[in-house]
Amino acid sequence: METASLRIQEDRIIEQIKRRIPSAEAGDLRLGIGDDAAVIRTRRGEWVVTCDQFLENVHFVATRQPADSVGYKALTRATSDVFAMGGRPRFFLLSMALPASRTGRWLEQMISGMARAARDFGLRLAGGDTARVERDISLNITVIGEIETGWVIGRAGARAGDGIYVTGRLGGAELGLRLLNRNGTMRARDRALLRPHFYPRLPVEFALWLGRKRMASAMMDISDGLSTDLSRLCARSRVAARIYARRIPKVSVPKALRNDPKFDPLTLALHGGEDYGLLFTAAPRHAKQIPARLGGTQVHCIGEIIAGSGVMMVEEDGTARELRPAGWDHFAVHSRRGER
Amino acid sequence: METASLRIQEDRIIEQIKRRIPSAEAGDLRLGIGDDAAVIRTRRGEWVVTCDQFLENVHFVATRQPADSVGYKALTRATSDVFAMGGRPRFFLLSMALPASRTGRWLEQMISGMARAARDFGLRLAGGDTARVERDISLNITVIGEIETGWVIGRAGARAGDGIYVTGRLGGAELGLRLLNRNGTMRARDRALLRPHFYPRLPVEFALWLGRKRMASAMMDISDGLSTDLSRLCARSRVAARIYARRIPKVSVPKALRNDPKFDPLTLALHGGEDYGLLFTAAPRHAKQIPARLGGTQVHCIGEIIAGSGVMMVEEDGTARELRPAGWDHFAVHSRRGER
Repeated sequence: METASLRIQEDRIIEQIKRRIPSAEAGDLRLGIGDDAAVIRTRRGEWVVTCDQFLENVHFVATRQPADSVGYKALTRATSDVFAMGGRPRFFLLSMALPASRTGRWLEQMISGMARAARDFGLRLAGGDTARVERDISLNITVIGEIETGWVIGRAGARAGDGIYVTGRLGGAELGLRLLNRNGTMRARDRALLRPHFYPRLPVEFALWLGRKRMASAMMDISDGLSTDLSRLCARSRVAARIYARRIPKVSVPKALRNDPKFDPLTLALHGGEDYGLLFTAAPRHAKQIPARLGGTQVHCIGEIIAGSGVMMVEEDGTARELRPAGWDHFAVHSRRGER
Repeated sequence: METASLRIQEDRIIEQIKRRIPSAEAGDLRLGIGDDAAVIRTRRGEWVVTCDQFLENVHFVATRQPADSVGYKALTRATSDVFAMGGRPRFFLLSMALPASRTGRWLEQMISGMARAARDFGLRLAGGDTARVERDISLNITVIGEIETGWVIGRAGARAGDGIYVTGRLGGAELGLRLLNRNGTMRARDRALLRPHFYPRLPVEFALWLGRKRMASAMMDISDGLSTDLSRLCARSRVAARIYARRIPKVSVPKALRNDPKFDPLTLALHGGEDYGLLFTAAPRHAKQIPARLGGTQVHCIGEIIAGSGVMMVEEDGTARELRPAGWDHFAVHSRRGER
């Protein structure tokens, strides 16, 4: 979750480091650039590793977010990248930098939320580091996952004819964020709508199933919004996508909000980030084997991969238009930063 | 590198997490508490993993430290923990949070220093995460090292009769830090004395040798000062130590500084932190096999493990006194924080 310019800069920085670091031992490491996580290949098999920061006033506002949600979400974000590669999360390391004011009750609740996520994902803590800082909580999490050798699911394998699938409903986290950022007091019944933003649910059982079945030709998690992430998958696979607006599983928006264009369900579903569902493609021969529901996770086929480049969306009325990436890093971050 | 209270709190926090996280699968994970790193045991062999933060205005002052040194030292600190377990460093992950002012030339130089350390240690970058923050550079590094199953060298194996060894000279990093923190301009000839603080050298070749030979009964790195770290090793092994002041390889202090008690070589060597040499013990039968020098690293036997508890030091004049832990986390941090 970062601005486009910073993402480009990150790629530049990592390229810079790669150039400066001694030549690669062929085949034992695939960098996480352009994929969700890195794959370490050794004679002992393969591991999926990823690290992710969750920073106060960059990724969350501590005064507006329950402490247990900070812990839950920090571990969820990092673990999502391991599931998205087809890996099975095993261990995590936690570095924390905390102001003194966050070492008491806040910390206990944060840990409680993180422990719940660890249970949900089958993760065990393998180490940590703690420092005290003047301000701004900083959590940094490394997740290590196992994977059978050669079974990694990257972003580059989508082929024309493959179906495009997503898990869960899209736009719920964005709806929660927008409600949170509205001025004024929140109605009690709207509080439940914050849950997808505070406690995003990973499709654990389905992700493990997919990791075992080897049906996905390409996969990633939806962290920056469908329009952005599907564009990335297509670019990496050198293909195009055609999706259907009516097939997209959209967040359910309360009636009272539906007239406000900020709460249009399709817009939220297309461009809202942080749902952490899976986006994957699969060859037509697998279409019937992919369950519509597994372990509480709904799976929807929203379109198909075609030759070319870019993402085309067929509207409810049947007209087709190009869908431009408009998720987190292309527009939303500026207004969000301001709102926060 | 942290205060005693924070260290205790860290242990409490990790205990708290351990209690809340589902019960351990027996034998597959040893937490890094009380050791330098954690050991992951799987059917695919063992891995040593550790993470370490290097934070502006906590661990370094960006205006006083060359950017390449920040990168070099950040990776050195983290990697030292892998060597200290007998592991062979293989991969690292880097999370950075940077203010905009540090994304240009400063960043290039920081990366250059980190790349040099990676070459020195045989490490390859396996992933990363980047975020922009308002202030205060934050680097978080995870290092993954390989180790033969069952070959981990912890802190708990020292036995009465074992020799106590250290690598390198002690106190050089502390001397550099104290010179850096002195008011007034620095004499040109003193600048070279900052090197051990800016670019601590790890005993790479010797560490790998020791990892292969399995001669060390206990080992750790000296990050918080000999008096503190040897006390920890003894406490974990439930033994005592007797060391000899004349045998301790002390930093060489320029004549002009020697009358200042802040620059007493023995005090610097006993209590100064961040040298990142190895402290290890070995049974008497190995004494002759341990080289006095390997790959540019000097190795000194400074005393022996005895029954009991605590650390006894025999002074130059032959009198013995108890050596209390007085390294980083027991006294220095308070004055240092102030100075910084």
